[in-house]
Amino acid sequence: MIDIDPWTITGAVLKAQARADNSRLREIMDSLVRHLHDFAREVELTEAEWAAGIDFLTRAGHITNERRQEFILLSDVLGLSTLVTAQNHAKPAGCTEATVFGPFFVKDAPRYRNGDDIANGAQGEPCFVSGTVRGIHGEPIADACIDVWQSDDEGFYDVQRSGLAEAQGRGQLSSLEDGRYDFRSIVAVPYAIPHDGPVGQLLQRLGRHPWRPAHLHFMIHAPGYETLVTHLFRTGGTYLDSDAVFGVRSSLVADWVRHEAGTAPDGRVMDEPFYTLHYDFVLNTFATQT
Amino acid sequence: MIDIDPWTITGAVLKAQARADNSRLREIMDSLVRHLHDFAREVELTEAEWAAGIDFLTRAGHITNERRQEFILLSDVLGLSTLVTAQNHAKPAGCTEATVFGPFFVKDAPRYRNGDDIANGAQGEPCFVSGTVRGIHGEPIADACIDVWQSDDEGFYDVQRSGLAEAQGRGQLSSLEDGRYDFRSIVAVPYAIPHDGPVGQLLQRLGRHPWRPAHLHFMIHAPGYETLVTHLFRTGGTYLDSDAVFGVRSSLVADWVRHEAGTAPDGRVMDEPFYTLHYDFVLNTFATQT
Repeated sequence: MIDIDPWTITGAVLKAQARADNSRLREIMDSLVRHLHDFAREVELTEAEWAAGIDFLTRAGHITNERRQEFILLSDVLGLSTLVTAQNHAKPAGCTEATVFGPFFVKDAPRYRNGDDIANGAQGEPCFVSGTVRGIHGEPIADACIDVWQSDDEGFYDVQRSGLAEAQGRGQLSSLEDGRYDFRSIVAVPYAIPHDGPVGQLLQRLGRHPWRPAHLHFMIHAPGYETLVTHLFRTGGTYLDSDAVFGVRSSLVADWVRHEAGTAPDGRVMDEPFYTLHYDFVLNTFATQT
Repeated sequence: MIDIDPWTITGAVLKAQARADNSRLREIMDSLVRHLHDFAREVELTEAEWAAGIDFLTRAGHITNERRQEFILLSDVLGLSTLVTAQNHAKPAGCTEATVFGPFFVKDAPRYRNGDDIANGAQGEPCFVSGTVRGIHGEPIADACIDVWQSDDEGFYDVQRSGLAEAQGRGQLSSLEDGRYDFRSIVAVPYAIPHDGPVGQLLQRLGRHPWRPAHLHFMIHAPGYETLVTHLFRTGGTYLDSDAVFGVRSSLVADWVRHEAGTAPDGRVMDEPFYTLHYDFVLNTFATQT
């Protein structure tokens, strides 16, 4: 006969799932159950608080659709996404750090050649981005596939704007023979993550804001190397110390240098101020990819 | 500048929510974040496993509607509901134990008088239920409001059957002056919790079945006493040792005594076999209710 109290319940659940065929699933669920129960005991969760939790998850589920993922947002603001990214991409010193993927990546973005303008009509101050892609021993990586995506000067990605005929602020290019890359785009700005749902309400009740510092997204893959998913942030940018999704790494903050109107890096004469940003990426060898 | 790794992320999230006005919310979220992060580190959660978790929650959210609550089901099968119930209803020895509420309660069920047949057409072998409602000092409790609800002989509650004009296997009655109650109903049978969704798939992958042992639900409230939400289980019943939602307490298992056709407790002559079930409930005084 089973006699369960707030302490013996944990052993009862672990015993019930002890026959799971999949030992990894059992390991995960055992740990999950122990921590879930420890949490409920530690805070002496009341029935009303439990019901509030059920209601929160229900509302998060109902607001989630093909274009909005409230559970990923929740994972992001609770630091879980950053934790999982970090522990799966431990790298030797000298490699470029990874950070969160975010929800705005699009597969098969338009192909560009080095030097092209990937803004493709997105509004913002011009920014010329350049650098190299290398391995940890300094070897240049040719033909690395570089995906770039970013917000416009109102903080929106192209996928958040309806009625666009073409991708904007997003593209794919390949590194040159000597590992160099360069493209033209616009200056990214800080933006708020979607905060009109349960996660936004939670942030507000926790005294937290929903803002992310300005950043450019990069995903770089090359045969024999660990795929790098990361951002570049802006030196001195707002929210660097309070990114709502904990994505900032000091090694990913770079100078976005402002220039008055004049000759740009690509030789053309600009009649407005522009920015330059230089960053050298270092990929890890493939071995640590799981 | 923030430099976050799989360990420092936890402190960064706690710091971010340190300014929450509501100290209880902060206490809960601090504990939740610590346990969530400890879990992810302990099992070294991979990105693919994280994505599977997001997908599970999304599917649970999408299958949840006004008549189905997959998150409560998840809480039930993970033992969280039982833990929360137990820790919020600790009582002096001698009081009837509480167990999980379940999703099949209906407010304002039909009123019956003692001796009435609450089956009201639900199919099953007749069962005559009787007993008393008393306080911990043995005092009879008059006019206690007793809600009863149960499945029929196919394991379905009335709310799971479409097209019923009236409630079946469900009713509300009041204890008599001397604390006694009695009613006629049918014998409840084991049934499977809804298992055609993500929670059912999880149970299957964990090597667990979705069955609950036969039981009658009771909710009893009386002024000055802690409301009691509980079940009565059947001695020797199937699944007593493996209830999918961990609701069984040995103190709640009672003899459902089978009788051959003949005179029933209410004096009528039965031309088929019938059961009797006697249980004396003991309510806690109100003080421990939070």
